[in-house]
Amino acid sequence: MNTYLDCIPCFVRQGLEAARFVSDDPVDHERILRAALREAAEADLSQSPPAFAQLFHRWLRESSGVADPYRDVKERFNRMAAAMMPDLRERIAAAADPMYLALRLAVAGNVIDLGVKGGIGEGEAEGSIRRALDEPFEGDMEAFRAAVQGADSILYLADNAGEIFFDRLLIEQLPTERVVLAVRGGPVLNDATREDAEAAGLCDLVEVIDNGSDAPGTILASCSEAFRRRFAEADLILSKGQGNFETLSEEDANICFLFRVKCPVIAAHAGLPLGSHAAIRWTRQTERV
Amino acid sequence: MNTYLDCIPCFVRQGLEAARFVSDDPVDHERILRAALREAAEADLSQSPPAFAQLFHRWLRESSGVADPYRDVKERFNRMAAAMMPDLRERIAAAADPMYLALRLAVAGNVIDLGVKGGIGEGEAEGSIRRALDEPFEGDMEAFRAAVQGADSILYLADNAGEIFFDRLLIEQLPTERVVLAVRGGPVLNDATREDAEAAGLCDLVEVIDNGSDAPGTILASCSEAFRRRFAEADLILSKGQGNFETLSEEDANICFLFRVKCPVIAAHAGLPLGSHAAIRWTRQTERV
Repeated sequence: MNTYLDCIPCFVRQGLEAARFVSDDPVDHERILRAALREAAEADLSQSPPAFAQLFHRWLRESSGVADPYRDVKERFNRMAAAMMPDLRERIAAAADPMYLALRLAVAGNVIDLGVKGGIGEGEAEGSIRRALDEPFEGDMEAFRAAVQGADSILYLADNAGEIFFDRLLIEQLPTERVVLAVRGGPVLNDATREDAEAAGLCDLVEVIDNGSDAPGTILASCSEAFRRRFAEADLILSKGQGNFETLSEEDANICFLFRVKCPVIAAHAGLPLGSHAAIRWTRQTERV
Repeated sequence: MNTYLDCIPCFVRQGLEAARFVSDDPVDHERILRAALREAAEADLSQSPPAFAQLFHRWLRESSGVADPYRDVKERFNRMAAAMMPDLRERIAAAADPMYLALRLAVAGNVIDLGVKGGIGEGEAEGSIRRALDEPFEGDMEAFRAAVQGADSILYLADNAGEIFFDRLLIEQLPTERVVLAVRGGPVLNDATREDAEAAGLCDLVEVIDNGSDAPGTILASCSEAFRRRFAEADLILSKGQGNFETLSEEDANICFLFRVKCPVIAAHAGLPLGSHAAIRWTRQTERV
């Protein structure tokens, strides 16, 4: 999707929040904020929001010399998620429909998104995940189950650190021998990289690849050729998070998008209620299954 | 107060919302948003937020040729407020402490602020005002009463259209022969001008002056000399809204600030809980009565 005008104030807020991740000095914060404003003033709105964020965060890492500003917070969310796993795994094992509960929890974990809301803390995220089943669900569980059963190869696109533990709960319900998990090729925001997949024990469960890109989404042109080949060959792509939706919603592929609808722009673009948990297929013709 | 870095993303959002008040054409919206971003990138943060907003909105009116972009919405809120008056006036008449209820309602009316939240509708505002007494109150009613009784002249600084009807409820509880009401000197955002004071019938109740300025606050250097004289001569100033607080909090004058704490920046600056209703005096030494 294109970048909407309403994305721009949100970028600026994200730029200021990011500044506080690379420095404690208000002089740096002001300099970075002014740079974000200048970049936003010239932004190419025909690109997706993650394309803009990719450039900004790359510049921020290079100019600050901080290679992975969100490393600490990613680890904090990984620890929070890890602590929730034993209880959630028991609930899934006892559930009438384990795959459905695992799917709902994987989508619920998408609340851990420091792009949309920089100030979210572990406590708020945990509470939100525990209330997950109370949120409206937009999707067709039987269609999801059939898509999984009919796929010889499934490419699962991870989104954020912390969240990736909840992805594992869903992946455990899939035919793991047919699943490949893809993470970002390098640090950007709190997006999951290989370290986070390892922290969640996913490297022992499925094949893990990276997409070769530092965009907070999946911009195919920015990904490695090896990733693009895996993407093209997959029977089914399970795409987590808004960033992957924003960058892949117009791709001609068999994609099921799993995400929380966290902002009014995405709600309007996808035609889904704000706050809902989505498991949808999507085509250029807005055909949804 | 100075402009905080956290005010900047909010300015940008306000700039986009303002664009939609002067035009229905997305091309205009983009042009105005990019101009707001460029202005924000060069903003003088030693000035107060209303100083920045004054320049932006003046440019917007001049470049669009729309002299009063918020005129329609101001009239809508005036009508909403007018419809609420008979019931509220009965409640005040029956109250154990009519001045306290009128004060609370005047502060509650400060929810009608299109700078802080452009999208607020009449229904939301009305509901919020009806729940006013449930919100925490930061102030000392007896100190307020004593300040009013001890003042030979009271200058009441209005804030927004619609809200000004709720100001009237409080002004009716004051010694009206000693009250002068000041409105903005020209249109800016949904701030009240003389038309709105007339709509609320205030010109028949008290002397109404304008401050000669088009800032969404009271920047004394931008006000007329006549207004500055009235300001200097008043025994007590009752200052409504965040914009007036942001621009007058460091003035050496006997000011009681009446406002809703509507954003985290003001909450932190004033040391008051977000969402609270304030009736506070304030000095450079942060002495509060």
